[in-house]
Amino acid sequence: MPLQPWMKLISVDDHLIEHPMVWQDRLSARHRERAPRIVETPRDGLPAVQSWLYEDRPYPYIGLNAVAGKKPEEYGIDPVRYDEMIPGCYDPKARVADMDIDGVEAMMCFPSFPGFCGTVFMKGDDKELSLQCVQAYNDFVLDEWSAAAPGRLIPVVILPLWDAQLSVREIHRTAAKGAKAISFPDLPHALGLPSMHTDYWDPVLSAAEETGLPLCQHFGSGGATSVPQVASDAPFAVMINLMGANSMHATADWLFSPALHKHPKLKIGLSEGGIGWIPYIVQRADYVWRKHRSYQNINQDVKPSELFQKHFHGCFIEDDFGVDNRHAIGVDRITWECDYPHSDSFWPASRKRAAEAFANVPDDEVHKMVELNARRFYNLPDAAPAPRAATVS
Amino acid sequence: MPLQPWMKLISVDDHLIEHPMVWQDRLSARHRERAPRIVETPRDGLPAVQSWLYEDRPYPYIGLNAVAGKKPEEYGIDPVRYDEMIPGCYDPKARVADMDIDGVEAMMCFPSFPGFCGTVFMKGDDKELSLQCVQAYNDFVLDEWSAAAPGRLIPVVILPLWDAQLSVREIHRTAAKGAKAISFPDLPHALGLPSMHTDYWDPVLSAAEETGLPLCQHFGSGGATSVPQVASDAPFAVMINLMGANSMHATADWLFSPALHKHPKLKIGLSEGGIGWIPYIVQRADYVWRKHRSYQNINQDVKPSELFQKHFHGCFIEDDFGVDNRHAIGVDRITWECDYPHSDSFWPASRKRAAEAFANVPDDEVHKMVELNARRFYNLPDAAPAPRAATVS
Repeated sequence: MPLQPWMKLISVDDHLIEHPMVWQDRLSARHRERAPRIVETPRDGLPAVQSWLYEDRPYPYIGLNAVAGKKPEEYGIDPVRYDEMIPGCYDPKARVADMDIDGVEAMMCFPSFPGFCGTVFMKGDDKELSLQCVQAYNDFVLDEWSAAAPGRLIPVVILPLWDAQLSVREIHRTAAKGAKAISFPDLPHALGLPSMHTDYWDPVLSAAEETGLPLCQHFGSGGATSVPQVASDAPFAVMINLMGANSMHATADWLFSPALHKHPKLKIGLSEGGIGWIPYIVQRADYVWRKHRSYQNINQDVKPSELFQKHFHGCFIEDDFGVDNRHAIGVDRITWECDYPHSDSFWPASRKRAAEAFANVPDDEVHKMVELNARRFYNLPDAAPAPRAATVS
Repeated sequence: MPLQPWMKLISVDDHLIEHPMVWQDRLSARHRERAPRIVETPRDGLPAVQSWLYEDRPYPYIGLNAVAGKKPEEYGIDPVRYDEMIPGCYDPKARVADMDIDGVEAMMCFPSFPGFCGTVFMKGDDKELSLQCVQAYNDFVLDEWSAAAPGRLIPVVILPLWDAQLSVREIHRTAAKGAKAISFPDLPHALGLPSMHTDYWDPVLSAAEETGLPLCQHFGSGGATSVPQVASDAPFAVMINLMGANSMHATADWLFSPALHKHPKLKIGLSEGGIGWIPYIVQRADYVWRKHRSYQNINQDVKPSELFQKHFHGCFIEDDFGVDNRHAIGVDRITWECDYPHSDSFWPASRKRAAEAFANVPDDEVHKMVELNARRFYNLPDAAPAPRAATVS
């Protein structure tokens, strides 16, 4: 039984649904009426639909993909009211209770309404309000969500991406308050922001290095590359199948950008990206580098695979092929995730599914992938010592 | 030495450069002056640039990526004259001589000027001319290129993609003349054509089944998905690294489309797509199917991985991770390629590189991947019997 009872599962990719007062509780009176708030729209014979309104723009889903506890047959209908979700979606105490049921020690939760990395606030007309909204979200995550269960809900913060200097300040402000990671777009250029091949992000990457906060690139956070190219008449399954291609693309961008050479301490998490594709794309990056570097403005000395081993970690929910190939990926590069409350999650059987995934993996490798690697990447407290019997075996 | 001297290498993805008279030799006088022809543009102190002109549109590269025989340091400068290429690019007798140097028995060559699957002719203003251009290309491939070395240059044809009925007729016309495969866009919807989720292609797919001709989907032939999303300031290496993502996307489209259920004999080749990503995307397709099929308009009974094993074959030039995982892919699903005269090719050392790639692979599996699978997929004559010593060993 390679997943031992004493190993503590740390999930590095989950999601929280913001409660209705996240911004209303925190913004000044002047900004409050254009800040995100919940509005109710009556339906014939059904309870009213709840949705977000930010400035004048409606956002129809409060709980996109918040389907934890539903059967697959019930997927495809996103909740339109808080009372259609289980409370663990939006209530941190209920979340921890759900984690206990699931055998999970700690979780890192990404935002919902703001987008995985806060891109909704880039669209604000009033950028002073946008900045306050970013800060209010981060204060909510640090002071309310994660504070409700210290050590169990790992805080990941968002940035005012439209301004590198404001982003630097927000990194330092939130790091001082206990932030453990930064949610960062996987493909900034797809959002109309400067690409990773420019120097625009250098101050941000330096701040991440100085504070030791990894950048988490949730797949699809950068506007989604593969996704808009999926045929409009394709079933949704095609897009779900291909989501990892976004993380592949983000990886290729980093491996051929100057950024990692300028920022040797930077850590990058490929959140929800899966792991089974990693050896293919990294090995191909080495092939491309060997044959094509001489005539291109790319680093001539360091192989892409060395950069991968130094800077990255991937994570997976269900990726048996990736686990089989953990040595080609690097056992130290792999972390594990739940994806609660999204449809890829196995809650309340995450621990059971993990035990199956690791059935043929040695204990020490399992321990790294489910717990120790996450502690190292995210600067979490050291693991408790293994029980004596376990260390002897 | 698992790649035995008696094994004949069959490459399923290579490229030919059309000589200047391909269309001028074949079209009627009325069409000739707007059909593709070579024009010369003087350069100061250098020989004139040769480029294609089709109707009124110039196509600046006659030999895009036709770099066989150059060193990597010389890549990045595409030939602009026929005399800057080695003759094997455009002369079938010279090609066969280059194959002999390379230890390669047979090759399947995709078009250059027309695009991998003839998409240039979709853009023609005069669709009667477009159809004649498609037919002239196919006649050139069948009557001139492949006829110069029967059995060694395997003919792959293109279709008038803008018209399904014309495409059906062209499949039957060329099959009767000895065509062995059809070059088909990997992502038709990205070209503005109906997607694989419509019934537009059904007559074409039926014709492919009836004639036994596989559809070869060369990566990037469908307008390229990942590619236009690469940041404009990214080095070219990023795009090269990600080209296989197009084949991943094409695969996901097929696996969740009704087409394979309606066309049980259809064969699909993922030309130049690499193979190392296959187990990841196919396994993920099964995960997606298991969790998400119930609420979607996708087949409820057949797992995507079963469709893959029945219909597809991949190929590779250099993909050691893929070879290591050949059993997860399916040894019967893998073919080999040279990519002559493009920059991914190892010519004149293709056989040497193949021997390295297969160093730890049993003989019978090597033989399938380099020769037997290609013979089966493309309805080529059976392999010669192995030498007696070899069959005994």
